[in-house]
Amino acid sequence: MNRPPTVAVLTVSDRCFNGEATDTSGPALCDIVRVELNADVIKTHCVPDEQEHIADELLHWATVEPRPDLILTTGGTGLAPRDVTPEATKQVIQRDHPGLIQLMQLRCYEKTPRTFLSRGVAGAIDRTLIINLPGSKRGAVESLEAILDILPHAIDILRGDPGDHAR
Amino acid sequence: MNRPPTVAVLTVSDRCFNGEATDTSGPALCDIVRVELNADVIKTHCVPDEQEHIADELLHWATVEPRPDLILTTGGTGLAPRDVTPEATKQVIQRDHPGLIQLMQLRCYEKTPRTFLSRGVAGAIDRTLIINLPGSKRGAVESLEAILDILPHAIDILRGDPGDHAR
Amino acid sequence: MNRPPTVAVLTVSDRCFNGEATDTSGPALCDIVRVELNADVIKTHCVPDEQEHIADELLHWATVEPRPDLILTTGGTGLAPRDVTPEATKQVIQRDHPGLIQLMQLRCYEKTPRTFLSRGVAGAIDRTLIINLPGSKRGAVESLEAILDILPHAIDILRGDPGDHAR
Repeated sequence: MNRPPTVAVLTVSDRCFNGEATDTSGPALCDIVRVELNADVIKTHCVPDEQEHIADELLHWATVEPRPDLILTTGGTGLAPRDVTPEATKQVIQRDHPGLIQLMQLRCYEKTPRTFLSRGVAGAIDRTLIINLPGSKRGAVESLEAILDILPHAIDILRGDPGDHAR
Repeated sequence: MNRPPTVAVLTVSDRCFNGEATDTSGPALCDIVRVELNADVIKTHCVPDEQEHIADELLHWATVEPRPDLILTTGGTGLAPRDVTPEATKQVIQRDHPGLIQLMQLRCYEKTPRTFLSRGVAGAIDRTLIINLPGSKRGAVESLEAILDILPHAIDILRGDPGDHAR
Repeated sequence: MNRPPTVAVLTVSDRCFNGEATDTSGPALCDIVRVELNADVIKTHCVPDEQEHIADELLHWATVEPRPDLILTTGGTGLAPRDVTPEATKQVIQRDHPGLIQLMQLRCYEKTPRTFLSRGVAGAIDRTLIINLPGSKRGAVESLEAILDILPHAIDILRGDPGDHAR
């Protein structure tokens, strides 16, 4: 990549939003992208588990400058009725990208089959890639680390490296 | 799990519905959940391969008490034009759960690559999990057995174990 | 299969459509299905990366006689904003078939994890199966070869082998 990727991290958690818990997953993700991808973290925020709230935030981040190359979410990907991060994400992405999640889960599977309990999705709005990660710090970190090698290439394509779409 | 899971089994088959064949897959699934999950099977039924018929039954089961923790369907997940169980399921679920199907197929793959010919989906209505299994007895049994270890945890989360969503 | 499968190949590429590049992926796919599946290639065409254009072509091919058993597309499955072959395909298929793509990517993964960057989908219109393959010649060929063993069975089911849906 010619210039460092820009990243935004959205923590989705009722308890963190209400001050009943401290967000450790969001900061951990910021550390990883800074160290491993040399990224600039340009936005972080915490929202409750409300579909419209999450969708609004993602759409705003992906469309108002300075917009990030990559948005990572953490939380709200489980099976419980209030876990609606995937639904909010599907509501706003233009092009879904299930393969990134499948690669992530395939690689996490050896450590824990429970990786497949996460319902996270991935997809793009214009040139911004959105990836849902689990809410637990360990789950979020392991899931992100599982696809770190492929993210620079994905971001390059989204940025529109002119030689790429030309086959 | 504090109390045994409640399960309902829906057999989707024109031929079984018309009395031209005997349903062996449904009873086999009932046996497995009783023995392996200590479950109470509270409902079983057979419907033809009609999308509205299947969707109505799933929605009724998932919303009228006593509703099951888990609904298993068998049949109608293939490639033929009348195989519409996945479409009926997608019509009624609120939150889809592709990871459960991927785990199932990944584990069945060693025995038979044809597991990937099943188009089955998984997802939840409120606190009821719905999983589509293949129609053949062998396919249904092998597919269910492939995720038996993870089902108790999935059901616990759906029931709302208070510590869980709190991260 | 009693009679050879009929196949159509759609190349999706702005540059090939505009004459700025020569389509090598489409002809390579034709060669493979002729040699490996003994198929009749009954239609080939090249369209630009325009969602409505792609969708119209797929729908026309799948519904006007002589219609093919299988339509393969190559191109437009990446992450770039103009990569919309999956969206065009989802717009016209009646029954999606994610398992075929998952089998393909699982088997290609050993050679290249980048197989998971393809967003290709699979699904059916009536009795015609549509599968999206990557645009690069190597990616298209490796992806098709990864599922060659299962395609005859899938086509048999779609053709309506009378014993099949009867369980």
